[in-house]
Amino acid sequence: MEVILAEYLGFCYGVKRAIHLARTNAAPGPANTLGPIIHNPQMVSRLADEGVGTVNSLDEIPDNGTVIIRSHGVGPQIYEEAKRRNLNVVDATCPHVKKAQMAAHSLFEDGLQVVIIGEKCHPEVRSIMEWSGEGAYVIESEAEADELPKIGKLGVVAQTTFSGAKFQKIVSRLLLKSDDIHIIRTICTATDQRQKAAIDLARQVDMMLVIGGKNSANTTRLAQLCSKETITHHIETATELRDEWFTNIKKIGITAGASTPDWIIKEVYQKCRTWHHC
Amino acid sequence: MEVILAEYLGFCYGVKRAIHLARTNAAPGPANTLGPIIHNPQMVSRLADEGVGTVNSLDEIPDNGTVIIRSHGVGPQIYEEAKRRNLNVVDATCPHVKKAQMAAHSLFEDGLQVVIIGEKCHPEVRSIMEWSGEGAYVIESEAEADELPKIGKLGVVAQTTFSGAKFQKIVSRLLLKSDDIHIIRTICTATDQRQKAAIDLARQVDMMLVIGGKNSANTTRLAQLCSKETITHHIETATELRDEWFTNIKKIGITAGASTPDWIIKEVYQKCRTWHHC
Ligand code: F3S
Ligand code: F3S
Repeated sequence: MEVILAEYLGFCYGVKRAIHLARTNAAPGPANTLGPIIHNPQMVSRLADEGVGTVNSLDEIPDNGTVIIRSHGVGPQIYEEAKRRNLNVVDATCPHVKKAQMAAHSLFEDGLQVVIIGEKCHPEVRSIMEWSGEGAYVIESEAEADELPKIGKLGVVAQTTFSGAKFQKIVSRLLLKSDDIHIIRTICTATDQRQKAAIDLARQVDMMLVIGGKNSANTTRLAQLCSKETITHHIETATELRDEWFTNIKKIGITAGASTPDWIIKEVYQKCRTWHHC
Repeated sequence: MEVILAEYLGFCYGVKRAIHLARTNAAPGPANTLGPIIHNPQMVSRLADEGVGTVNSLDEIPDNGTVIIRSHGVGPQIYEEAKRRNLNVVDATCPHVKKAQMAAHSLFEDGLQVVIIGEKCHPEVRSIMEWSGEGAYVIESEAEADELPKIGKLGVVAQTTFSGAKFQKIVSRLLLKSDDIHIIRTICTATDQRQKAAIDLARQVDMMLVIGGKNSANTTRLAQLCSKETITHHIETATELRDEWFTNIKKIGITAGASTPDWIIKEVYQKCRTWHHC
């Protein structure tokens, strides 16, 4: 069976980097990430086996211990507290997220009213919020933009994983709210790249397999996009593959959500390669 | 006959101010505006009678003479040359235009690539261009925005009389050209106010008279908008009024383009008030 992997799939640059930093900085002492490093229980437990645990607050880390900041980033208070407590900080904040935090911070310092376009409860958005003096508005729809008051000087940043098309629509509503707007488009290309690569591949194959949590928003979106192009199945692991799917199929494409570890992708890949339809 | 004037009509704040400054600064010596003060020959010849002439270049003004900068404004070179020549400068640049010039200038000084949304050959746009180091792009359509290259840091200003709706559409295309955009919306409310006031009035009357040059873009636009609401006639002066228009008409509304002098409006108003339809 011919099986092709999407040009971009699975972990993005920022998540790969964070996992690498966590692994290489775990030894010798115990280390902990503040919050789970990604939304994938298998990955979290693998890291735990390697000595990288998870805590929910700095209080759980012993003095002089190591805290790993995950790719989503954190607000300035955490850095201050870690310094006060003399903790060893491994900062695995994704550089793209860092850029969004610093952009929001400098807009705030320049006296602009910051608006963050993103999901209110997303940890990355919370961190950007904390870098913009806690006075930022967070909006994720055109309707929410319309509800804002008139603003003198407005500064805009985005959650890195926000949809570019939606960002554009929301910003065009913000243009009615202020005559002086500084927009820093801090959207990272990973999500777009993954979606484009998935669509490209879906057009060339007889069947697409999209691997990732059934409750993962970005995986579900990949599956939606692929299903417009070809027969598509959304699976969490290789065990879900079913013999009848392979009838009349010659070419299979594979893509995976942003929190799907490599080894799960490889398993599906191998199983498809050697599939003997009978 | 009941005749109602639109709440806003004719000369805008900036033009009224420029004419006032020209008149009060003409005496004692001869004074000249650089370019015609407005696009209305009657007004220009009235001012000439009062001692305010028109020149096309500073060379035509004698040393120690007076130059009047009209509401559209001029670039920094003119101020420098006037200073060198020791001319007396009466700066009647509209404050809204000044704001656009200074906005473009400071964006340019901050190292941003300036984009001016406006008409390339409009004298105001030329002046803003000269304040932004001559390297600005001038665009007036979404298609022209799409043709721009990718830009690192982008600064946007607008011709003061540009349409707010069109500005919004063009800016939303510019969002695809740069990840760091500072937008200063230098549109003045005069045009909008005039249009809204004209529509409001058109809805209450049996006939609208729109006074202004047949080749004036803003007057033609007013006539278009009014004609959607009620019977509308576009005239240049009171002599064009025709008896048959007044059949069955009880209430007349009047508006006028931005370059229509008060006395022409008054003439039309008086003639309508005393019209006896027979
Ligand atoms: S974590 Fe990933 S999605 Fe982008 S912002 Fe960083 S590369
Ligand atoms: S000249 Fe008039 S149209 Fe506005 S920018 Fe000044 S008030």
